[in-house]
Amino acid sequence: MNFDDLRFLILSEGKFGPMTSKTANGVIRYTPERCVAVLDSTQAGRTAQEILGFGGALPVVASFDDGVRRGANALLIGIAPQGGQLPEEWRGTIRHALVGKLEIWSGLHFFIGDDPEFAALSAKHGTPIHDLRKPPADLPISAGRVRDIAATVILTVGSDCNIGKMTASLQFRDGLKRKGNRVAFAGTGQTGILIEGWGIGVDAVVSDFVGGAAEHLTVQAATNADIVLVEGQGSLIHPGYSAVTYGLIHGSLPHAFILCTQPSRQTIDKNDWVRIPPLPELITMHEQVMQYLRPAKVIGISMNTFDLSEAAAQDAIKRAQDETGLPATDPVRYDPAPLVDVIDAFHRARIR
Amino acid sequence: MNFDDLRFLILSEGKFGPMTSKTANGVIRYTPERCVAVLDSTQAGRTAQEILGFGGALPVVASFDDGVRRGANALLIGIAPQGGQLPEEWRGTIRHALVGKLEIWSGLHFFIGDDPEFAALSAKHGTPIHDLRKPPADLPISAGRVRDIAATVILTVGSDCNIGKMTASLQFRDGLKRKGNRVAFAGTGQTGILIEGWGIGVDAVVSDFVGGAAEHLTVQAATNADIVLVEGQGSLIHPGYSAVTYGLIHGSLPHAFILCTQPSRQTIDKNDWVRIPPLPELITMHEQVMQYLRPAKVIGISMNTFDLSEAAAQDAIKRAQDETGLPATDPVRYDPAPLVDVIDAFHRARIR
Repeated sequence: MNFDDLRFLILSEGKFGPMTSKTANGVIRYTPERCVAVLDSTQAGRTAQEILGFGGALPVVASFDDGVRRGANALLIGIAPQGGQLPEEWRGTIRHALVGKLEIWSGLHFFIGDDPEFAALSAKHGTPIHDLRKPPADLPISAGRVRDIAATVILTVGSDCNIGKMTASLQFRDGLKRKGNRVAFAGTGQTGILIEGWGIGVDAVVSDFVGGAAEHLTVQAATNADIVLVEGQGSLIHPGYSAVTYGLIHGSLPHAFILCTQPSRQTIDKNDWVRIPPLPELITMHEQVMQYLRPAKVIGISMNTFDLSEAAAQDAIKRAQDETGLPATDPVRYDPAPLVDVIDAFHRARIR
Repeated sequence: MNFDDLRFLILSEGKFGPMTSKTANGVIRYTPERCVAVLDSTQAGRTAQEILGFGGALPVVASFDDGVRRGANALLIGIAPQGGQLPEEWRGTIRHALVGKLEIWSGLHFFIGDDPEFAALSAKHGTPIHDLRKPPADLPISAGRVRDIAATVILTVGSDCNIGKMTASLQFRDGLKRKGNRVAFAGTGQTGILIEGWGIGVDAVVSDFVGGAAEHLTVQAATNADIVLVEGQGSLIHPGYSAVTYGLIHGSLPHAFILCTQPSRQTIDKNDWVRIPPLPELITMHEQVMQYLRPAKVIGISMNTFDLSEAAAQDAIKRAQDETGLPATDPVRYDPAPLVDVIDAFHRARIR
C-alpha cells in the first residue's frame, strides 16, 4: 500500500496516555491524517484530545471491529509489551488484522514477521507485515563517509532518553522548510520511521554496525536535502542506552548539536543513581565526543517543559539562556523560531 | 565435548600470519595445548614459531585430512572472511568437519549453525556447531547492576582497535593469580571467549543491549573472583567501533582502566583522518566517560611495541611514564610486573 493511503487503527490497549504510548502519540501528532481510531477498551468513548491534550476528535474504541468500521486498513502497534514478549491478547488482535487484510506496522524489538503463526497468516491472506526495527542487511562499519556530503547535518542529543528529541526535530523540520530549505528528517527509532515512512531503527542494529547505520541513513537523507535533521536517541549518560547515542554521533558526524532537556528531571530515567549535570557540562561532554573526529558545537537548547507551570517554564528557559549563552525554548509549547533560526543561520554561515 | 578435551585444527587458509589471523594467534598463544595444526596450504611445512614468533613446533598443514591425522577433534575458524560472506572453499572444509564429527568453533558474525546446509549436516552427524558470537537471549538493558558486586573490575581500553587489549589482560591475569588473587577474565570477543570457554561477543549484540551484555558478563565473572579483568574492545575514537567501546564502559562500570596503546600508530586503523591524541588526552577522555556514573581512573599504560627496535621500545615506555606519571610497559615483550603490581595495589587499597 502507498504510505500516504495508510489508515491506522492504533493498538494501545490499557496504555493510551501522554507518557505510556510514545509510538501512538508521535503518529497522532505528526500524521493525524493516517489515524482513524485508537484501540484501548479501558478508555473507549473518549478522544485523543481529552487524553493526550492533542489529536482532536480521534476516537478511542473498544474493539477491533469498531476500528475497521471507521475505515482502518492497517494495524499500528502503538505501545511496547512489558518484558519484550507479545501478550496473548495482542496475538488475537494481530491475527484478526492479518485475516482481515489490515497491514501490520510494528516498531517492536520482537519481529512479528518472524513469528511462525503470523508469517503463515500473512502469506495465506496476502497481508504485509512491516517490522520497522528490522535493520537492512549489509550495513557498513562507519568510517566517516558523512564527510563527503554537502548537506548540513544537525543531530538532537539529550540529557536523558524519552524527552522529546524526535518531536523537537519535527518542529525544526517544519520551520526550516518554511524558510525555504530542503530538509530531510532521518528517523532512527520506530516512531520517526513511521512518521517519515523510512529510516533505520539504530537501537535494533548489531552493535558493530550502529555507527554504520547512522552513517548510511545520513548519507541517504542528504541526497535531496540541504539540511539533514538526524533523530537522536538516548543520552551519553544513560547507563542502558549510551552506546547507541555514542554510535549515532560518530556515525552521523553532525556539524552541530541541538541539546534537548527536560528541566524537571534531576536524575536519569529509571536510574536515579545517575544525576543529570548542569547544561554547561552537558554541552562540553557532547563537544568532547566529536573533538577528535570532526569538531562540532551545541548551538541551541530545546526544552521539554510540559510538566511545568507557565511561570516555571519561562523561568527554566530564561535560566538555560543565561547559563549557556545559547538560544533556548520549548519548541512544542512555544514558537520554535529561536531554534529554527539558529539552525538556519548556522547552515547559511557554513555554506557561505 | 569437555572444553579441555578440544584439539583444534585451525583454519587459516592463505592468511596465517602475525597480523592476519588474530583468532588463530590468540588461541595458539594462550591455549597451545588445544592446538594440533594450522590449515594453510600456502605455508604448509612451516611452524607457528617461524611464522608468528611464538607457538613452537605447531605445524602448518596443507589439508584437512593431515590435520585429522594429527589428532584434531574440532575445527576452529581462525580468520575472518573478506566481506563477511563465507568463501566457497571454506564451505568444503566445514562440510568435511561436520561429516567427520569435528566440532565447529567459530567466532564469525556469520552464524554457521544458521546455514541450512550446515545445520542439516550437524543434525545428521551429531556434530556440534559453536557460534561464539551468538549472544544469549534475554540480555538486560544495563542499569548499574555492577555496583552491587564486591569484586574489583578492571577494563582495558585503547587508543585504537586491534592493539593487544586481550593479550594484555591475559598477561595481567596470570601475574595477578601468581600473587594469590582469584581472577576472572571476562571475554568480550571471539578469541577471548575461545580462550576461556565462556564470554559474550559484545559487538554481535543488538546495540540496545551492548551495555547489558557487558553488565551481565561482569556480574557473572565476579561470582568466584576478587578481580574481574574485562576484555576491552575498539576505542572511544574509532569511528566504526566506538559505540561498542562506550557501551562496554557503561555496562561493566570498571573501578579502573588500563590504557593500551601502540606507540608507532599515529592515526586510527583504516581511518587515517582520525589522529590519535597524546596519552594525557586519552586518559582524560576515558575518565570523563565515567564521571557521571562512577568515577574511575586510568591506573597504568600497556604498550604494544612489537614493531619497534629495542631502543625505540624502551624510549616509548620511558616517555609514556614521564607524560602520564603512571606505570607503563609492554607486558608481552617485557615483564608485566609494573602493571600487575599497580592493579594488585589498586585492588588491595580498594578493599581495605
